[in-house]
Amino acid sequence: MPDTRATIIDQPLIVLHPDDSVGIARHEIAAGTALQGGLVVASRVPAGHKVALKPHAAGDKILRYGQIIGFASAPIAVGAHVHEHNLGLGEFTRDHAIGADRQSPAPHLTGRGFLGYRRPDGRVGTRNYVGILTTVNCSAHVALSVARAFERNEMAGYDPLAEFPNVDGVVALTHKTGCGMSAGEPLQLLRRTLEGYARHPNFSHVIVLGLGCEVNQVGGLFDGGNPALRRLTIQGEGGARKTIARAVEDIRAILAEPNAVNREWVPASELKVALICGGSDSYSGITANPALGAASDLVVRHGGTVILSETPETFGAEHLLTRRAATQAVGERLVDRIRWWESYAAAHGVSLNANPTPGNKAGGLTTIIEKSLGAIAKAGRTNLEQVIEYAEPATMRGLVFMDGPGYDPVQVTGQIASGANVVAFTTGRGSVFGSKPVPTVKLATNSPMYRHMADDMDINCGTILDGEESVADCGKRIFDRLLATAGGHRSKSEEQDFGAPEFAPWVIGPVI
Amino acid sequence: MPDTRATIIDQPLIVLHPDDSVGIARHEIAAGTALQGGLVVASRVPAGHKVALKPHAAGDKILRYGQIIGFASAPIAVGAHVHEHNLGLGEFTRDHAIGADRQSPAPHLTGRGFLGYRRPDGRVGTRNYVGILTTVNCSAHVALSVARAFERNEMAGYDPLAEFPNVDGVVALTHKTGCGMSAGEPLQLLRRTLEGYARHPNFSHVIVLGLGCEVNQVGGLFDGGNPALRRLTIQGEGGARKTIARAVEDIRAILAEPNAVNREWVPASELKVALICGGSDSYSGITANPALGAASDLVVRHGGTVILSETPETFGAEHLLTRRAATQAVGERLVDRIRWWESYAAAHGVSLNANPTPGNKAGGLTTIIEKSLGAIAKAGRTNLEQVIEYAEPATMRGLVFMDGPGYDPVQVTGQIASGANVVAFTTGRGSVFGSKPVPTVKLATNSPMYRHMADDMDINCGTILDGEESVADCGKRIFDRLLATAGGHRSKSEEQDFGAPEFAPWVIGPVI
Ligand SMILES: [Ca+2]
Ligand SMILES: [Ca+2]
Ligand SMILES: [Ca+2]
Ligand SMILES: [Ca+2]
Ligand SMILES: [Ca+2]
Repeated sequence: MPDTRATIIDQPLIVLHPDDSVGIARHEIAAGTALQGGLVVASRVPAGHKVALKPHAAGDKILRYGQIIGFASAPIAVGAHVHEHNLGLGEFTRDHAIGADRQSPAPHLTGRGFLGYRRPDGRVGTRNYVGILTTVNCSAHVALSVARAFERNEMAGYDPLAEFPNVDGVVALTHKTGCGMSAGEPLQLLRRTLEGYARHPNFSHVIVLGLGCEVNQVGGLFDGGNPALRRLTIQGEGGARKTIARAVEDIRAILAEPNAVNREWVPASELKVALICGGSDSYSGITANPALGAASDLVVRHGGTVILSETPETFGAEHLLTRRAATQAVGERLVDRIRWWESYAAAHGVSLNANPTPGNKAGGLTTIIEKSLGAIAKAGRTNLEQVIEYAEPATMRGLVFMDGPGYDPVQVTGQIASGANVVAFTTGRGSVFGSKPVPTVKLATNSPMYRHMADDMDINCGTILDGEESVADCGKRIFDRLLATAGGHRSKSEEQDFGAPEFAPWVIGPVI
Repeated sequence: MPDTRATIIDQPLIVLHPDDSVGIARHEIAAGTALQGGLVVASRVPAGHKVALKPHAAGDKILRYGQIIGFASAPIAVGAHVHEHNLGLGEFTRDHAIGADRQSPAPHLTGRGFLGYRRPDGRVGTRNYVGILTTVNCSAHVALSVARAFERNEMAGYDPLAEFPNVDGVVALTHKTGCGMSAGEPLQLLRRTLEGYARHPNFSHVIVLGLGCEVNQVGGLFDGGNPALRRLTIQGEGGARKTIARAVEDIRAILAEPNAVNREWVPASELKVALICGGSDSYSGITANPALGAASDLVVRHGGTVILSETPETFGAEHLLTRRAATQAVGERLVDRIRWWESYAAAHGVSLNANPTPGNKAGGLTTIIEKSLGAIAKAGRTNLEQVIEYAEPATMRGLVFMDGPGYDPVQVTGQIASGANVVAFTTGRGSVFGSKPVPTVKLATNSPMYRHMADDMDINCGTILDGEESVADCGKRIFDRLLATAGGHRSKSEEQDFGAPEFAPWVIGPVI
């Protein structure tokens, strides 16, 4: 097997992980092409397809992203095209094999860190906002009006926070629900989401605004959250105007407090990274996702946390994660969530079937495992330490899986509620997503899009496709940027003040 | 039967409609109390309960809101308490009896009208906004940023629309959906809603902003809408900043056009009133709702349209509407929608059961019909001319029923998409709802709340409870205010700039 780390640059094959037994054709490779390290490509290989980097006997594991994507169904020589004719899954996906691929974790690395906000109770924030949350859509306009009183107006040259440079802003996060809903799981899920935001360390103070008669009552919510939490209802205060005036006054009265807080060095183990891909393209699984996976492995090596989600994109390939489950209970909890999605999807007449389509196969994806790994690659290769439901607190370090849909704003809202303090978002088509109070870093899968949307992209992972960088080196660069962003470096979406409209709690029940 | 219109003032009984055979006790009435007109209350009657205004033989119809709420199950003397012991439904609710209570409409009244915006194709608007719509949450921040460029900042003393006094504003209506959804009915419903806004006559021009890769593609949407409709995608323009700049420039370039449009007199038949109650209390069915019903009858008498909705609140009492259906097909379409809700609710494990609860009965409501009439009373007594699905165009004049949930922002969003040009919103607890581009007028059911939330309430219907005004007189006052509002009188919610966050298209499918 060639030294992939040394030979990747300027080669026709991309090697996604040092352990891989196949490489990916960067572009179409002609039959007989000789590569550095002595590998000769035996037959024509289309772009995105796999080439064997080592000989496989029938039954041997085939590794991509450093993980099993199937088994050789026939002997495979070095340089051979690997696809449906010589790669199969056998019984692999019928057995969750909880913990079968569990690893003994290496001791954590130390020394890397960032300048964070350490709150009095020890929680570490990466930003320093005052938050305004709402119980219901009926208080959304009031909440936004309060936030507006603290907004800079560049055209007017007006900055109401000029005296409070350490305060990142006053942000109102509003939503469309909170009433016209049933009081069971849909309501609990909304309350859990709001509670996660109310206690988020990126908020120094939080005000919660309700109407008064909504299903999602402000009473009983938000106990044990951030200090100086205030709760107001519009009906209690005597209308919108009085509520706005009261909340603005309350916030003005405390602004000196968050302004007095300073960043201090904290270890990289305080990183909690939300992983997400949105607007994916055929390069996502070759460039940005595996590069983010390399960064995820670095985060975990340093004792930090990465939060994977997007259950529907794991569907049918949950074995990838159950095999790495740190305990039996963790593996079983993931299987439970997959079962929940099966019945939820069936009740709504929606299909979650992720089997590779003919188009996927033409693009070089052979098995469902390989397809799902394109998304899961973001999480690297470490053990699965915890499975949580949407917006539940991520309390374990290492890789955590949060159940939830794949729709970007809904997913990230849950991850932030779970405690994520930086968001890493890969995109191929070009998303302009941003989040508050947690910064989002966007990773482009290809250089043309990176250049076309330069105002919105933070990191170009198209360098891997261009032959300028290995996956591992790109991963290091991402890790560095995550630390810098956690420490205050403003992301492209922050420069443009994205993040409030993208707050989108998951709605699972009917509107009535 | 006493002349209720003459005797209501300062009497212990409220008569909700001139045809009614029962009156409602404004407060508890002692046995033997003699009222004007010779009526003597036979036994103690609790507040909110019914007293017979005329003698009923067993089997006689009992009328409240001018409509059947059941039949005398025993002979009832004038002045008797009417409740479960002498009022029943029999087989009434088992038969839709389509058209059984259909009336021959009187000729329309003329002469009343308002100053509206007549668009080149004849549609009549009540406001003159430039609209920014989004296909997906991913373009929400960009849309809001474009609108912000045209917003007045009072604290900074800055008004970018100062030169365009005839333009009511540039409003961005954003939402949380548009992707992570299946492409069947949920998507069609969203597209229908957006199309309804895109062609709404309260917009002079509309810009539609998309991301590019969303499920809800901008292509194919919004054909045949307002003139000078523009469509931009962020991916097409090369990112958020460029898209904002382009849209701001596009809007600046056309602002002189809507500013040149003037209001002109149009007949009251151009009114299309969305009817809604939210934050209801025990007075809703006694004061504001029947008063709005009287106003609705005036709107229809003048050839205008009222749009009733809130299907779940009709559930089990759809007979109230099918009996007034103008055609067999209209009645059947309503029954179809009720069936849809039955299966939708069952699939989600949600109950729509509206049978009077013990609490309802203690408050004086005897039958399910009577309870549902509390909400349906808003629509008056005219024939049901059309049943439409959520956000479908209301093309008939008179009473139109739009299927949809009862949750305020979702309901009104559908009604505006259907073409409503003014919203009449009754509230007992005190809603602070507002809408754009269509003004919302809020009607308080009781005087204490009206005074407590004076900044937010437009009309006090508590006057009926206070004995200061009849239902019919309050209805005339509402009708006058609807015309004035349509003609430019700013409602309380408009004074406070409500209405953009309240845009909430109905989401019926799962987030995936
Ligand atoms: Ca659960
Ligand atoms: Ca995704
Ligand atoms: Ca505004
Ligand atoms: Ca339909
Ligand atoms: Ca309602």
